[in-house]
Amino acid sequence: MSNLGLLKFAKEASASRVVETPLLSNITANQITGKNLFIKPECLQVTGSFKFRGAWSALSYMKKEDSIFDGVVAYSSGNHAQGVAAAARAHKVSAVIVMPKDAPTIKIENTINFGAEVIFYDRIKEIREEIGEKIAKERNLKLIRPYDDPLVIAGQGTCGLEIASQAKNLGIKEAEVLVCCGGGGLSAGIALALEEYAPSFSVRTCEPKFFDDTARSLRSGTRKNNHSEAKSICDAILTPTPGKLTFPILKKLAGQGLVASDEEVLKAMKFLYENFKLVAEPGGAIALAVALFSSQSLQKENVIVVVSGGNVDSDLFKKALSKGSITL
Amino acid sequence: MSNLGLLKFAKEASASRVVETPLLSNITANQITGKNLFIKPECLQVTGSFKFRGAWSALSYMKKEDSIFDGVVAYSSGNHAQGVAAAARAHKVSAVIVMPKDAPTIKIENTINFGAEVIFYDRIKEIREEIGEKIAKERNLKLIRPYDDPLVIAGQGTCGLEIASQAKNLGIKEAEVLVCCGGGGLSAGIALALEEYAPSFSVRTCEPKFFDDTARSLRSGTRKNNHSEAKSICDAILTPTPGKLTFPILKKLAGQGLVASDEEVLKAMKFLYENFKLVAEPGGAIALAVALFSSQSLQKENVIVVVSGGNVDSDLFKKALSKGSITL
Repeated sequence: MSNLGLLKFAKEASASRVVETPLLSNITANQITGKNLFIKPECLQVTGSFKFRGAWSALSYMKKEDSIFDGVVAYSSGNHAQGVAAAARAHKVSAVIVMPKDAPTIKIENTINFGAEVIFYDRIKEIREEIGEKIAKERNLKLIRPYDDPLVIAGQGTCGLEIASQAKNLGIKEAEVLVCCGGGGLSAGIALALEEYAPSFSVRTCEPKFFDDTARSLRSGTRKNNHSEAKSICDAILTPTPGKLTFPILKKLAGQGLVASDEEVLKAMKFLYENFKLVAEPGGAIALAVALFSSQSLQKENVIVVVSGGNVDSDLFKKALSKGSITL
Repeated sequence: MSNLGLLKFAKEASASRVVETPLLSNITANQITGKNLFIKPECLQVTGSFKFRGAWSALSYMKKEDSIFDGVVAYSSGNHAQGVAAAARAHKVSAVIVMPKDAPTIKIENTINFGAEVIFYDRIKEIREEIGEKIAKERNLKLIRPYDDPLVIAGQGTCGLEIASQAKNLGIKEAEVLVCCGGGGLSAGIALALEEYAPSFSVRTCEPKFFDDTARSLRSGTRKNNHSEAKSICDAILTPTPGKLTFPILKKLAGQGLVASDEEVLKAMKFLYENFKLVAEPGGAIALAVALFSSQSLQKENVIVVVSGGNVDSDLFKKALSKGSITL
């Protein structure tokens, strides 16, 4: 199926289960950034992140093609984990999730609460792809990759379809769409949707300062790696390198990559709390951090910021609340 | 104009400015309450509370009837203040707001940021209605009362119109709609909308434990007062007595009144943070506190909870985050 065909399948499959998140704006945010800023709050999505979109799309396709199978397996730092666990539960299919030992407690607990079997691995010493593939083979489970899967990309793309349609209703003719980027599933999916339905919109990837593999890859034209010793609070988007399927899409459709520091991310979390009444996790707030602290790198008047998720442990959220407010 | 006529006017006026907030649900919330629970997050409304709806409706009507006037005045503990300030700014009209000295900092700052002139009064020693009426007369301003105004009630009723339409789309045939209650503007407005568009839905008012004037008034059939020495963290809904216009509506249309303690409210705030990624202020979380801790008082399977606002100082929010989680 073509990218457009997959996108249409994902859209249709999602109608019954996926939340159409609103597009929110706020006078203070516009004054501070000097832009017409819109927030797409995917933290309000089922399981608290956009990842449910891709998981739902992949599982719906599997069920359509082959209604009888033993279950699914996924590896994930936590949001894809919850997305797959919840989608599997709704499809009445069992799920095994491979998660790093140091994933946020809230993500581990939620994944278990959705009924999945969780298997832990060591982020430094083990390779999650190998563990996932081994389990899939041994236990006859279907593997749902977090981003390098056309149906997952198409599922995340439904967020882009909503952006295109909501922006049109608001009379927005062109915009930069800021999207956090780990493996690139969300940014590539949104880019494909916008290419078709809002071609004057451009995606800009947003990454943590020392995890700018996508920004560097976009500059050089080839996939670059992060240095494994770097650290960041943005647990959801610490992928070592852009995806095999996602990078060519971003290379073709996305603008220059952007970055933000952990300190800027914490302030953006406070800003979302104060001005939009939203709970964002660090990776979920990074696109807003870019809009707040690097608006000189943005070219268009209208800026749409995807807040990708809100699964954050309360101690870290309290740390964000202790930061100074951003005011005029 | 009839109640229905006012509601239709408010709906039409709100189309361009008021956020249609989504109806959110969550597996964990359903499991814990044993209900089909839906959250209507008015904390995502412009100014962070439903109050913008009523203010916008009242101001739009004033502008329609009399396009030239000097400005508006309102008295408010903080959310109506922000609603009127933001609506006045959008209508290019000046606003004077009478607020208690001890209102939450975030509410005072936002009201000033929306360009309003703020005048403080002492909650214990002074009567805000008298101050508001005096300023209106002296400075030739139009007074927008927080709840005892048919256009304000109709504006808040647009929230009920959305509930009726969204619930219909979800196939919900009957439901209890839990709404926080101070003066009763929101609950009465929603009750009027549901009477017309979802007559099998019933409104239940939710109040802080020692501010249950509406619950006692509904029991006795006449308007009762609160004792002024009582205290609660629910600053938004500490009104001394039900409204003159709102009470007859609630008496006719609402079920028995419900209450929750401050401790239950803090836990409900944590629950909204964890499960819905929403920031609720205490008054905004009270209806959920009732659903979580008094579900035995609810009669229907479907429960729609209005989260009325999210303007809460971060120290108090941190206190809520320090509470234990509600789990299965």
